[in-house]
Amino acid sequence: MKILVSGFDPFGGEKVNPAIEAVKKLPNKINGATVKWVEIPTVFYESADVLEKSIENFKPDAVLCIGQAGGRSAITPERVAINQDDARIPDNKGQQPIDKIIREDGEAAYFSTLPIKAMVEAIKKEGIPASVSNTAGTFVCNHLMYQVLYLVERKFPDTKAGFMHIPFLTEQVVDKTDTPAMSLSDITRGIEAAIGAIVDYNSKEDLKIVGGEIS
Amino acid sequence: MKILVSGFDPFGGEKVNPAIEAVKKLPNKINGATVKWVEIPTVFYESADVLEKSIENFKPDAVLCIGQAGGRSAITPERVAINQDDARIPDNKGQQPIDKIIREDGEAAYFSTLPIKAMVEAIKKEGIPASVSNTAGTFVCNHLMYQVLYLVERKFPDTKAGFMHIPFLTEQVVDKTDTPAMSLSDITRGIEAAIGAIVDYNSKEDLKIVGGEIS
Amino acid sequence: MKILVSGFDPFGGEKVNPAIEAVKKLPNKINGATVKWVEIPTVFYESADVLEKSIENFKPDAVLCIGQAGGRSAITPERVAINQDDARIPDNKGQQPIDKIIREDGEAAYFSTLPIKAMVEAIKKEGIPASVSNTAGTFVCNHLMYQVLYLVERKFPDTKAGFMHIPFLTEQVVDKTDTPAMSLSDITRGIEAAIGAIVDYNSKEDLKIVGGEIS
Amino acid sequence: MKILVSGFDPFGGEKVNPAIEAVKKLPNKINGATVKWVEIPTVFYESADVLEKSIENFKPDAVLCIGQAGGRSAITPERVAINQDDARIPDNKGQQPIDKIIREDGEAAYFSTLPIKAMVEAIKKEGIPASVSNTAGTFVCNHLMYQVLYLVERKFPDTKAGFMHIPFLTEQVVDKTDTPAMSLSDITRGIEAAIGAIVDYNSKEDLKIVGGEIS
Repeated sequence: MKILVSGFDPFGGEKVNPAIEAVKKLPNKINGATVKWVEIPTVFYESADVLEKSIENFKPDAVLCIGQAGGRSAITPERVAINQDDARIPDNKGQQPIDKIIREDGEAAYFSTLPIKAMVEAIKKEGIPASVSNTAGTFVCNHLMYQVLYLVERKFPDTKAGFMHIPFLTEQVVDKTDTPAMSLSDITRGIEAAIGAIVDYNSKEDLKIVGGEIS
Repeated sequence: MKILVSGFDPFGGEKVNPAIEAVKKLPNKINGATVKWVEIPTVFYESADVLEKSIENFKPDAVLCIGQAGGRSAITPERVAINQDDARIPDNKGQQPIDKIIREDGEAAYFSTLPIKAMVEAIKKEGIPASVSNTAGTFVCNHLMYQVLYLVERKFPDTKAGFMHIPFLTEQVVDKTDTPAMSLSDITRGIEAAIGAIVDYNSKEDLKIVGGEIS
Repeated sequence: MKILVSGFDPFGGEKVNPAIEAVKKLPNKINGATVKWVEIPTVFYESADVLEKSIENFKPDAVLCIGQAGGRSAITPERVAINQDDARIPDNKGQQPIDKIIREDGEAAYFSTLPIKAMVEAIKKEGIPASVSNTAGTFVCNHLMYQVLYLVERKFPDTKAGFMHIPFLTEQVVDKTDTPAMSLSDITRGIEAAIGAIVDYNSKEDLKIVGGEIS
Repeated sequence: MKILVSGFDPFGGEKVNPAIEAVKKLPNKINGATVKWVEIPTVFYESADVLEKSIENFKPDAVLCIGQAGGRSAITPERVAINQDDARIPDNKGQQPIDKIIREDGEAAYFSTLPIKAMVEAIKKEGIPASVSNTAGTFVCNHLMYQVLYLVERKFPDTKAGFMHIPFLTEQVVDKTDTPAMSLSDITRGIEAAIGAIVDYNSKEDLKIVGGEIS
């Protein structure tokens, strides 16, 4: 099995983005699956183009996109992406769409096809707080999640896809009183646990398709 | 130079107390100073007795007591301890004093004699959030801080003393939505940085006393 | 113009629901529009049936559903409802659907057809905090918002509809440390301001349709 | 019985200070006691001079100082004031003392001589969140509380005194996401309830002194 993991470059005045920092630290193999990562520009549409090319080249069984949700205290697999760009700040190319539809021919929303609740349980089993989130916002994170789910529906029907938000890194909040954060090592372990859950889920799916032994 | 660091045992239904967990992980030497630790029972008065004996035996130049402040997102050196026990929950021996004076012959409050602002800067330099706190509460943490400052004033005039609160450990908040936490390794690094600041401060004080070269 | 406003009955162990309390206090006329209210049971599906009947009887030009979002500090018009029931607690009839689709023949999500940003501005102009929310959760609030938008799309094409969350009432958080709340009178003024924005928006729409003078 | 209530003028870039706004709305009589208010400049030392003059003129039985604690969600009677000025921002005359002792001949701290727990209960009985606070900070609020307690100890031994913090007004947080606030009417009712508790407490004290009938 092959898993593609994406992480964004820094945005919004931050010097690092824990998403790509953590993703780079992942092992090459998790529960027997091959893991590859790709850095994604925090730019509307361009982000999706970069990811699409990676999917074409690597042909993963699952894509897990990682983004930063400053202010959250837990790792949060996202349930749904909506067909809407509404940017509070400009992206890394200065684009700031307000209330724009992402894809005229797309659904109003796409639900993650990754096992988000199993991912939450796997992360918590590692001693790291996690919960399902019902909004990926309306910035580039939601945009990328929407786009990858639009793409897999049309071009890569055998690929599962979804998005997971992670908190600020501890070092990002040194001067931000009362803002929760998480260490890079805990974030990395959390992502690894989530990928482990994706691999396990996929194996059972495979069995189900092949032999039907598992309900 | 010799530094005594104390950490509490678990209380309030928690299985671990990050205070003692982190303290146990400290190196034996920090910036040339010898570091020893002692575990303190989360019990009014008894906590102070245990610490007093440790001070008598080890004769430290400085005492840094560590306690957990669940819900805080930063490491917080405390400025002041007040002459008041007021317990929201029982201590580990079932005592729950309400609005009680700790020492009839003590001051209304004692200020930390550790360099709390230098400690904050040293912790932040390590990429870990820190700030001065103006309340250690009215439970055993404040009690111990009050008692150690009362003691050093009367019995150990050459010893500096103070208290520092640390957040929940990440694994303690797995099921507590929206509660900030910190990894054990960051907490330990933070305490180490704070002790480094105490050692540096003390060296300058020594010079001042001996030769007067430093203003 | 006619506006139907709905509010839920209490749920989750709370004795009051600020939603219906505030809605009952609304004036009968706002900016010239006639306002009627209906109390909705906090029950999956049944909530939608009650609202549907009210729409059939009253034939409103706009429907604004109000629900409580305990823990939020602002009034939050919702952007989108998703085709998913996932209940953390049972509804008032003991139903607790987990990861269920609401309508097999519905869209993945529906966007509010009310002027959510104008509503936010109108509420803030009254000195009351407000912001657009991107998730109505997955409990009965999201359910009702999804259902009313599903319904207006199919049965009442001339009716605008949407949902707005309000904070806890002040008296609900007397013993909940650190939980934000709002007074009933501010909540009521906020809803009134939001309805004012809906009326103004609708008037401009009408002009556009009739005469085209307004771009 | 006579009660003097003080409120600060605005500071820190805020246009209003809910403290003085609420204080001005208090009735002249509460539980039979005469209530007078005085506006206090948010200035170190000058604040205390103004209050001292008011005490000399009005000769109150109790003084309740009110200040704003932006970010708190409850009304919080303060337990203790410390002998320390440490200003994060300048006061209204540009003074910004750092780690300064307020009174060389004062105690390290003074405890409120008002019935803070009875005040909390009285406020909560009105449906308004309240709790005892253990820190009034190190800005002008703590300064004034320290000074008034220093003064009553030396010059006005028959006068009780203390301090109570109140949250931001709702209209102050219109653009501050996630900041709790309280309506002016709830704040005023809360202060009134606290004063009622002070009056009740004082009456019992009087009886005790006169006749001893009440334990």
